[in-house]
Amino acid sequence: MYYVKESIKNCLRIFPQQGRSSYLRLDMNENPEGLPKKYVDEVLKELTPEFLSMYPETDMFMEKYAGYVGAHKENICTTNGSDMAIRYIMEVFVEEGKNVVTVTPSFEMYGVNCDMLGFKHKPVPYRQDFTVRIEDVLEAMDEDTDMVALLNPNNPIGTVFTEEEADRVIEKANKVGAIVVIDEAYHYFYPESFIKKALENDNVLVLRTFSKLCSLASLRLGIIIGNPVLIRYIMKARPTFDVNAVALKFGEYLLDHKEIFDYLISIEKEGRKFIENKLIENKYEYMIHKGNYVFIKPRQEASAMKEALKERKILVKTYGNELLKDWIRINTGSVKVMNEFFDIFYRLDHEAQ
Amino acid sequence: MYYVKESIKNCLRIFPQQGRSSYLRLDMNENPEGLPKKYVDEVLKELTPEFLSMYPETDMFMEKYAGYVGAHKENICTTNGSDMAIRYIMEVFVEEGKNVVTVTPSFEMYGVNCDMLGFKHKPVPYRQDFTVRIEDVLEAMDEDTDMVALLNPNNPIGTVFTEEEADRVIEKANKVGAIVVIDEAYHYFYPESFIKKALENDNVLVLRTFSKLCSLASLRLGIIIGNPVLIRYIMKARPTFDVNAVALKFGEYLLDHKEIFDYLISIEKEGRKFIENKLIENKYEYMIHKGNYVFIKPRQEASAMKEALKERKILVKTYGNELLKDWIRINTGSVKVMNEFFDIFYRLDHEAQ
Repeated sequence: MYYVKESIKNCLRIFPQQGRSSYLRLDMNENPEGLPKKYVDEVLKELTPEFLSMYPETDMFMEKYAGYVGAHKENICTTNGSDMAIRYIMEVFVEEGKNVVTVTPSFEMYGVNCDMLGFKHKPVPYRQDFTVRIEDVLEAMDEDTDMVALLNPNNPIGTVFTEEEADRVIEKANKVGAIVVIDEAYHYFYPESFIKKALENDNVLVLRTFSKLCSLASLRLGIIIGNPVLIRYIMKARPTFDVNAVALKFGEYLLDHKEIFDYLISIEKEGRKFIENKLIENKYEYMIHKGNYVFIKPRQEASAMKEALKERKILVKTYGNELLKDWIRINTGSVKVMNEFFDIFYRLDHEAQ
Repeated sequence: MYYVKESIKNCLRIFPQQGRSSYLRLDMNENPEGLPKKYVDEVLKELTPEFLSMYPETDMFMEKYAGYVGAHKENICTTNGSDMAIRYIMEVFVEEGKNVVTVTPSFEMYGVNCDMLGFKHKPVPYRQDFTVRIEDVLEAMDEDTDMVALLNPNNPIGTVFTEEEADRVIEKANKVGAIVVIDEAYHYFYPESFIKKALENDNVLVLRTFSKLCSLASLRLGIIIGNPVLIRYIMKARPTFDVNAVALKFGEYLLDHKEIFDYLISIEKEGRKFIENKLIENKYEYMIHKGNYVFIKPRQEASAMKEALKERKILVKTYGNELLKDWIRINTGSVKVMNEFFDIFYRLDHEAQ
C-alpha cells in the first residue's frame, strides 16, 4: 500500500461554494463590481495568442512593484495568491513539531496550512470586547514558535496592530527564533503599512495581494516583501512558474496607472460611509473597523438572515464561533451596491419580526 | 536565528531567462504562434470586471474535462500547472527519506521537487542508443520507492513506453508500495494515453497540461486524473484557490470547441514533416520521436550554434549531459515557423564551416 502523509489524512477541508457569479457577492471581501471596464479592456488588448502561449515572466512586474513600495527587486517575490505565500513561508521556515502563532478568528488559511503541513497552530483568541491583547500574542510565542502571523488589519474583525505592538512581536520573535509575517491583504482600506519593518529586519515578511482593493481575486496575484536572504529562500521553494502571465500583465498595468488605487479607495470609502449611516439611522448594532467589511447584528438569527439573503441572491458571511455567532458580515462596495444590499436586508429583517 | 529547511538551503535553482517575447521561441516546447486569434478573442469577451474580481471556481471546467476523458469529476483535480501537480503528489505520497524514480534526462521539475522537498531522486539513465530499458526502471524501484514517474512521451528525447512496459512498472509499484505518475504533457502529439490505467488502478495518476498543444503556457493549467481516493488526498493538499479563473475559462472554451485540438495537431504535424524533410534533404543527423520537438546535430558545436541563433533572435535548447551535448533541440511549429528557423539555421551552419 502506498504512503499517505499523516497530516493530509487528518486534515479537514471545506471547499468553497460554486456558482457565485449569479449572486451579489458580499461574503468574501471581493470588490463586487470589479475594476472600471476601460482599464480591463486596455489590458485584454495585450493578451495575444503569442503572449498566451508563452511561459510567464515576472521581472517587469517585480521591478514595478519594488519601485512602488520603495524597495528593490531582490526584496520581492510573487506567489500564486497569498495562499501560496503562506504555504511557501511555512514550508521553508517552520520545522516539524514546531508551532505557528496567529490570532483567532483570522484568515483561515494560516490554520489550514498548519493542518496540511503538520505544524502546530497556536491561536490567540480575541477578548469578549472584540480586541486582541498584544500581551496574549507575546505570551503564546515560545521557544517552539517558528512563525507568528499578524494580519493588519485582521480579517474578519478589522482590528489593527500599532507600530509599538508590531515592534514588540518582532522583538520577541528575534528572541525565540521566529519569522514574523505581517499580512497586509487589506492594505489601502487602512493606509498604514509595516513594509519598512520587512526591509529593516532580517526576520519580517509583509504579504500583499491584488485580490482585494485591486479587484483581481480571479487571477491569484500575491506578493511577499522582505529582506533578500528570506526572499531568496522562498524563491528556491517556488516552482519555476507560479503566477500566471495574465495576472502579471494586469499588475503591471495597475502599477502604471496608480490613479486607479485612489479611485477604488474613494469608491469603497463612500460605500462604507453610506452603509454606516444607514445602520445608524436604523439603529442597528454594527462594527466597522479598518477593512472593507462590516459586521451587522440582525434582529433575527444571523444564520436565518444569511439564508433569507441567499434566497434573494445576496451572499453574506456568518461565523460559527461564540464571539461572532449573532452577526452577519458583509464586505463593502460602492454606494449603489450598499444601497441594494441594505434595502433587501432591511425588508427581510422587518418581515421576520 | 530562525529555522530554514535544510533541503531548501542546499537546493540549487536555475531561474528562467526573461525577455523571451521578442524572440522566435523554439526552446521550451511552447506553440510559437499560439491559438488562432478568433478563439482567443471569443474568450477575452467573457473577462468582465466582475468575473475578474471573483475567486475562481473549478466545477464547470472539471465537469467538462471529466466528460472529455471519459471519467467523473471525482477523478479530476486541477493544479497551477504540472509543476504544482508534481509537487502536491510528492508532498502527499512521498515519505521523508524515501525515493522517487524517473528516467534521465527528463522533465527537470521531478528532480528539482525532490531537491526542494528533501526526497531522494533515483534517475535511470538513457542508454547510448537513446532508449530507456524498462528493466533499468524496474531495477531502480526498491522498497524505499514511494513514487515513479514516466513521461509519455518523455521530454526531451520523445521516446514512449508501451502498454506492457507501463503495466510492469505498475505491477512493481504495487509490490513496493509506490505511486505511479504517468505524465502526458505531450499527449496529442502522440495519441496513445494511459488514462484508463489511472481509472483502473488505485495507485496510478495521469498528468495533463494546457501548456503544450493547447498553447496556454502563460495560464498555468494542469490536470491530475486518478481514482477518487488519490484525488481527494491531493485536493486536501491544495490551497483553496489554485488555478486562476482565466485559465479555467480558456480551458472550458477549448473543451466546448474540440475541433481546435485537431486543427492544432494538424498544424504541428505539417511543421514536423516539413522540418524532417528539410533535414533529410540537407543530410542532417536528427532525431524525431513522439513529442513536438526535434534534435538536430549541427555541423558546428551545439553551444556555438545556440548562441549564433540567439543573435538572430531564435531561441533553441542545448543540453550539458554527455548523451546530448552535440545536439540542439527545437520544438516544432507551423510550416512557416519551421521554414523561418531552417533558413537561418542552415545559413549560420554553412557560414561557420
